[in-house]
Amino acid sequence: MELLAEDFLLENEMAKTLFHNYVKDMPIIDFHCHLNPNEIYENKNYENITKIWLNEGTYGDHYKWRLMRANGIPEKLITGDGDDFDKFMAWAETIEKSLGNPLYEWTHLELRRFFHINETFNSKTAPKIWEKANALLQTEDFKPRNLIKNSNVKAICTTDDPADDLHFHKLIAEDEGKNGFKTLPALRPDKLIHIELPTYAEYMTKLGSVAGVEIKNFSDIEKVMHQRFEFFTLMGGVLSDHSLETFHFEEASQAEVDVIISKALNSEELNKNEVNRYVTALLVLLMKLNNEFDWTMQFHINSTRNLNKPKFEKIGADTGYDMIGTQPDIVDSIQKLYSKACTEGFIPKTIFYSLNQNDWLQLATLMQSFQGGTVQRLQLGAGWWFNDTAEYMNKQLTVFAQQSLLPNFVGMLTDSRSFLSYPRHEYFRRVLCNFFGRLVEQGRVPNDEAILGKVVQDIAYNNAHDYFGFFK
Amino acid sequence: MELLAEDFLLENEMAKTLFHNYVKDMPIIDFHCHLNPNEIYENKNYENITKIWLNEGTYGDHYKWRLMRANGIPEKLITGDGDDFDKFMAWAETIEKSLGNPLYEWTHLELRRFFHINETFNSKTAPKIWEKANALLQTEDFKPRNLIKNSNVKAICTTDDPADDLHFHKLIAEDEGKNGFKTLPALRPDKLIHIELPTYAEYMTKLGSVAGVEIKNFSDIEKVMHQRFEFFTLMGGVLSDHSLETFHFEEASQAEVDVIISKALNSEELNKNEVNRYVTALLVLLMKLNNEFDWTMQFHINSTRNLNKPKFEKIGADTGYDMIGTQPDIVDSIQKLYSKACTEGFIPKTIFYSLNQNDWLQLATLMQSFQGGTVQRLQLGAGWWFNDTAEYMNKQLTVFAQQSLLPNFVGMLTDSRSFLSYPRHEYFRRVLCNFFGRLVEQGRVPNDEAILGKVVQDIAYNNAHDYFGFFK
Amino acid sequence: MELLAEDFLLENEMAKTLFHNYVKDMPIIDFHCHLNPNEIYENKNYENITKIWLNEGTYGDHYKWRLMRANGIPEKLITGDGDDFDKFMAWAETIEKSLGNPLYEWTHLELRRFFHINETFNSKTAPKIWEKANALLQTEDFKPRNLIKNSNVKAICTTDDPADDLHFHKLIAEDEGKNGFKTLPALRPDKLIHIELPTYAEYMTKLGSVAGVEIKNFSDIEKVMHQRFEFFTLMGGVLSDHSLETFHFEEASQAEVDVIISKALNSEELNKNEVNRYVTALLVLLMKLNNEFDWTMQFHINSTRNLNKPKFEKIGADTGYDMIGTQPDIVDSIQKLYSKACTEGFIPKTIFYSLNQNDWLQLATLMQSFQGGTVQRLQLGAGWWFNDTAEYMNKQLTVFAQQSLLPNFVGMLTDSRSFLSYPRHEYFRRVLCNFFGRLVEQGRVPNDEAILGKVVQDIAYNNAHDYFGFFK
Repeated sequence: MELLAEDFLLENEMAKTLFHNYVKDMPIIDFHCHLNPNEIYENKNYENITKIWLNEGTYGDHYKWRLMRANGIPEKLITGDGDDFDKFMAWAETIEKSLGNPLYEWTHLELRRFFHINETFNSKTAPKIWEKANALLQTEDFKPRNLIKNSNVKAICTTDDPADDLHFHKLIAEDEGKNGFKTLPALRPDKLIHIELPTYAEYMTKLGSVAGVEIKNFSDIEKVMHQRFEFFTLMGGVLSDHSLETFHFEEASQAEVDVIISKALNSEELNKNEVNRYVTALLVLLMKLNNEFDWTMQFHINSTRNLNKPKFEKIGADTGYDMIGTQPDIVDSIQKLYSKACTEGFIPKTIFYSLNQNDWLQLATLMQSFQGGTVQRLQLGAGWWFNDTAEYMNKQLTVFAQQSLLPNFVGMLTDSRSFLSYPRHEYFRRVLCNFFGRLVEQGRVPNDEAILGKVVQDIAYNNAHDYFGFFK
Repeated sequence: MELLAEDFLLENEMAKTLFHNYVKDMPIIDFHCHLNPNEIYENKNYENITKIWLNEGTYGDHYKWRLMRANGIPEKLITGDGDDFDKFMAWAETIEKSLGNPLYEWTHLELRRFFHINETFNSKTAPKIWEKANALLQTEDFKPRNLIKNSNVKAICTTDDPADDLHFHKLIAEDEGKNGFKTLPALRPDKLIHIELPTYAEYMTKLGSVAGVEIKNFSDIEKVMHQRFEFFTLMGGVLSDHSLETFHFEEASQAEVDVIISKALNSEELNKNEVNRYVTALLVLLMKLNNEFDWTMQFHINSTRNLNKPKFEKIGADTGYDMIGTQPDIVDSIQKLYSKACTEGFIPKTIFYSLNQNDWLQLATLMQSFQGGTVQRLQLGAGWWFNDTAEYMNKQLTVFAQQSLLPNFVGMLTDSRSFLSYPRHEYFRRVLCNFFGRLVEQGRVPNDEAILGKVVQDIAYNNAHDYFGFFK
Repeated sequence: MELLAEDFLLENEMAKTLFHNYVKDMPIIDFHCHLNPNEIYENKNYENITKIWLNEGTYGDHYKWRLMRANGIPEKLITGDGDDFDKFMAWAETIEKSLGNPLYEWTHLELRRFFHINETFNSKTAPKIWEKANALLQTEDFKPRNLIKNSNVKAICTTDDPADDLHFHKLIAEDEGKNGFKTLPALRPDKLIHIELPTYAEYMTKLGSVAGVEIKNFSDIEKVMHQRFEFFTLMGGVLSDHSLETFHFEEASQAEVDVIISKALNSEELNKNEVNRYVTALLVLLMKLNNEFDWTMQFHINSTRNLNKPKFEKIGADTGYDMIGTQPDIVDSIQKLYSKACTEGFIPKTIFYSLNQNDWLQLATLMQSFQGGTVQRLQLGAGWWFNDTAEYMNKQLTVFAQQSLLPNFVGMLTDSRSFLSYPRHEYFRRVLCNFFGRLVEQGRVPNDEAILGKVVQDIAYNNAHDYFGFFK
């Protein structure tokens, strides 16, 4: 088959039928991404393809940076002050060595779907592609809002600090009709969780002031966060997101937690046990709030970040120096959290993602132990970050299907910082159709395109539409 | 391919030949299940299909309950006092969402093989199926003994407490000629292992009284268990089974163990270390006894049970609230146990099962380090519980084959509470034939149906027949 | 397909083209093996096929021994004083039960490629094969050097103690032109690492004396090892290899390490923490040296060895009693080691191998966090030992490709003790071609045999040629 041919990734007849006739044109709900609302609001053209692909402002594509480093490209041409064209050529050189890597496919998909450039991207073709792409990037179609709208996206959920005033969300919302898509906030309280960081005390002052409360203890945090959930809900928010690199469940009394908070606010150092107790108490609170407001809670667990200390100090987080986490019993701590919530009756709608595949079957069977009340209340999230490949998407679908009810799955998200990432939904849909098509080939599901067509449409769009509730 | 067509799961020519010409009609030895000997003895018809499929008396199909909860079905229609027809309809509604789940296939297989109902099961077809199935359930063919016999089962091993008098086994044995199959006890000393439970002291009194011994220390336990092994052997028993949710190997002197037992008999609370020491000593004893009596020891490890405390208190264990265990180093403890047995010379025939696939390759290479004396003395058990799917059966076969000698494998079991579960053997055989057929397609084994036909027949029946020794 | 037919393991058109037209005849660089330089130097014929296949002198094929034990073969016919023909017949009997095991394929490949015996090997055909193979074993072609040369091997890296005088390497090097291949040393300081063994003090005296230094502290070790790196470099060495069954990163000051060394030299027992501190300090030193000398460091991690104590005492290590390691957080310790090296600026070229597949994705993402400076500075090694199968080779290729740049991979090694093991390179190349061919079938890489042919040739030979630098 030719590269990215019409039927790529579709290995059987039913898969082709399902993709082309049922799911290809379904709209997109991108319920978790890292797009910058400011950029959506400003809606400016990109200067050239290096800016949108490799680095623009504070954000950059660390997936690509990482591969360039593996190819021995000097840092000057990755995150340094190298010339944009030279960076682009260095990426072209890297892509030649990336056969079998998802970035090979994504890069070519983006060239085809947005730029209608069907050539193979390599050192030879790169200069022409540079010219052609840069010209297109100056047109109306390549402004952020049009990139989103023309990708048939109906809603985007960004990633927002609880102290955020959601200023840009308000401004974008005024144009919602014109834009053709919703831009909704999703609450991610990283700075509230990281009590061990020296910035905690300052952040808590800021968070408190937004809610008109001076935070001195846990009860103050409860008040403030309840208020932030109310505010985010008002702004259309229905999701929160929680990154837990590691997590050790440790219960403590509220008095004990208050002491820990007090120490942190005084910039005293905390030991591991204190951090664990605080985080456990905070997660319990967040579960209660998600449940009360009928939001969906997302857990992203088991990652180890910022391994390159010199680079972290120079260029910060999210720069390509992260790995899959190695906490072998993290799911055991999640289990204790949910056991507690089960006993006390506040299990929220939840999507679990672990960066470490060793956790997937554990998580899938954990979630099944706490289902009930609503349809597919707990979900296993799509293959995330390093697992966002055809093989691991297929593995996640297999795990979900075999342990739970896959036709209830809320499906794909981009988790992306780029306005060009929507073809990942196409990619996922191909894998999804192939998954069910293969079951047909094996005689394990009805050979009935109406039944299966409905299922893949539900997973592509309808389930997310109904589950999160932001179209109510 | 149509759903469950003649060649379902058979993806190559050799697989079809092997299944249809060699293995389809081989008898079944179900060497580990949870059937109730009382029900086999009483041999009563079921009132309706909800009773036999979803819940009858103390037992129920918690695999199905779990899926129903994921679909948001109210508990009234799962384990509650809902109407049987309504429960059946709720199951039909759930099954529509279970495409890709093994229960989709099992449910349809059971309808076809026992009831000769070939329709797809869904909300529309359910009312008719209810009528048809219920009528059949009143016939002779649907009494437990006929369900077993007509499934071509030659032996069943149940799961029995060491204190059991095996009353029903004796009664059933009188009809063995007429039944056409053996019903043999298998010893599962759960209550003896769980020294941390408040019921331990009372149970030990009961166990001792059965053997005419007052249990005060470890040496008393040795005496009693030796006697129980003798009794079970007399009743045809050749297997024991040991469920270890977690396991930490900790050696102790007999005097230390005696102190622990004494505390437990006095209902004093034990710490984790004490429990570990007792369990280690007990497992060593059980290995010696299994070796002495030439039995086969089964280990089921790494599960976490009864996560939903409110439900556990209300409806008990085995109700669908269990998950894959998360003890990352459990195999290390099993290794220490076998290293000790190796040094002291009492390694029993063993089948290892872990609910956590992360352990499988570790276990397979562990077992290979202690082989010897008899053919395939140690075995890696078939995909268990949450792993009982085509993909994971195939994975277990791959691991066994690549690390050991698959043609010596004792094969499939049902681990089931239902008289309708024998089609899982058919299912396994299809996966097995497909496994070898694929190796033929790749040129990795001889393209010789006589050789491979013998191998699949051995794994389906002959190996279990020879290995366990209950036809001697 | 017939067993080992021309296209075995090649499941698509592109795979066939790539293997037969591009990669089949590429030379071999076997950059990690356990061949005995003494045997290469002496270059003697083997008495019979049992000697070269099952056991010769101090070495034996413990992969085969292990399988024979699983088949219940008495030890007399494995490592005992049984007759060589009887041993051969016992192996034939075992091989009949090994369908699906890599040894089934390797055994037949060796018969075909070296002996041109195309029959299936089993109890019936074995006596004739015994005669034919033994006759051939007496010819010139079956002397070790010709077995290597005729396998198109250009370089072999052995496994050598730092105290070794590399006497045989010198002697073999004199015949390099005639031999047609290089035999290079690779440094493996097992005895330097195992400070907990009673043999440590004696070994350190020997190691010191080789370098003319009395080793009393860490600084002495630094001096000695620097000198040994110089010596090995002079002899063509460019690789070191480090076996870490378990590893716990623990930093200590040099003074603390000196105390630990001093205790060990006085034969005092060390606790675990002391061992960890010493090993950590030593690995840091070895990383610095590898980096300074531009060598490649190989880590072989997570194995558990010599489980059968009675057998270990009788017949020693490497006798078939080993298992996959169970340290769940070993990669976390490797991460700490590399984080330190990153901060201090001495990351060497590295190849990571873990016996435990649960570690692979963790390792692959770890390595990507420390890339840079040169092309593919860090690599994930090919499927090792129990993972050296078609399925796990394919898994390793998938992990490497999806997390990094597979076209830069240095490829396969034998890790073998046998002069007949080179067909494993053929086997790997078939898996490799099939891997890329399958991506073509899915439309994920260009359908272009020139591009892909170059890639598979690079992985088969060119990358290793350029990466290690022993042809400079």
